[in-house]
Amino acid sequence: MTTANLSHIFRNPMIPTLHFNYRYFEVEQEGETQWWFGGGTDLTPYYLDEEDVKQFHGTLKKACDKHNPQHYPDFKKWCDNYFVVHHRGERRGVGGIFFDDLDTPSQEEAFAFVQECANAVIPSYVPMIKKHMNDGYGLKEREWQLLRRGRYVEFNLVHDRGTKFGLFTPQARIESILMSLPLSAKWRYKHSPVEGSKEDELMKVLKTPKEWV
Amino acid sequence: MTTANLSHIFRNPMIPTLHFNYRYFEVEQEGETQWWFGGGTDLTPYYLDEEDVKQFHGTLKKACDKHNPQHYPDFKKWCDNYFVVHHRGERRGVGGIFFDDLDTPSQEEAFAFVQECANAVIPSYVPMIKKHMNDGYGLKEREWQLLRRGRYVEFNLVHDRGTKFGLFTPQARIESILMSLPLSAKWRYKHSPVEGSKEDELMKVLKTPKEWV
Repeated sequence: MTTANLSHIFRNPMIPTLHFNYRYFEVEQEGETQWWFGGGTDLTPYYLDEEDVKQFHGTLKKACDKHNPQHYPDFKKWCDNYFVVHHRGERRGVGGIFFDDLDTPSQEEAFAFVQECANAVIPSYVPMIKKHMNDGYGLKEREWQLLRRGRYVEFNLVHDRGTKFGLFTPQARIESILMSLPLSAKWRYKHSPVEGSKEDELMKVLKTPKEWV
Repeated sequence: MTTANLSHIFRNPMIPTLHFNYRYFEVEQEGETQWWFGGGTDLTPYYLDEEDVKQFHGTLKKACDKHNPQHYPDFKKWCDNYFVVHHRGERRGVGGIFFDDLDTPSQEEAFAFVQECANAVIPSYVPMIKKHMNDGYGLKEREWQLLRRGRYVEFNLVHDRGTKFGLFTPQARIESILMSLPLSAKWRYKHSPVEGSKEDELMKVLKTPKEWV
């Protein structure tokens, strides 16, 4: 895949957007070191392909289960509750896993878990790129993708803790924080998909998260 | 101007975007009624035409001066200090007037002033539409307009008090609050205009507000 191919691929509304982010924090306070891990992987489709979502969640669950059987159910729920466009009453996507303040059972084991999650990113996502990269689409589907990207912008700028923290921190690397914004986004007054349409099918899942695996 | 013409006009990056909003508040507290006026008119150009900006500020100043010679300087400064994309260290536009909590000298006189401001909106703006509606532009200018509209989105979602208040108010009319978002916006990682370009000329004024009249 060349760069030209990639920009072509990520314009295709049949290919979901992926976000992931794993990080290690260390804070020195009165001679004592506090550390924790945080992060997550979540998927934002424009059109719902249930097989894709199952494969995605299944891959993340498998990675989690190797470390703790409670991780996937806990972090799946955390993700569903975090990536919420609260003022719209909808999630930005179909979730994935999300966690913060992870400092158990030991630093080594927590690190091994986070590495497992990071290594699951590519296998969770690349199959759906391969599957959909040649799917056709028209202006209507592209428009819907850009409207959904508008909601993505709303989440990131209004609700995301990381963004808000970063933007109000003096001398923060603004470009690094805002690189999660899409290249393009659209808004339309009172837009709502036609009932029973493919777009409406996605909205139902964004309003009421499902168990996928 | 038909609707089709209008959407054509507001795609033209040579025509600035206008925002205005005048309002009356009344609050009952322990049997006592508190009231005040608020509002403003501000201009967001993509390319700087100094004559336009002078005409715009001049029209607002004339309206203000009829009521109180201190209004224009005070409310011009308030506007410059309000419409700031703080995390970028830039204003969203070339300002105008902005005020809140206006409850002097009397309700009648404050209302007359606010009406004067509202009546100044059309004469402050329409001349530049007429002047630029047939100006040519290319993809480069349209791209710049959309990038600036991205910054407009950043201001509205991250900093605007009205938006933030509205979005966190249960059962607020979300669509009415977010109708100030543009139809389309773009973001590009680490975008910065070429020094000495027309785009750079605008940025200088957005970073350091000027006195126009």
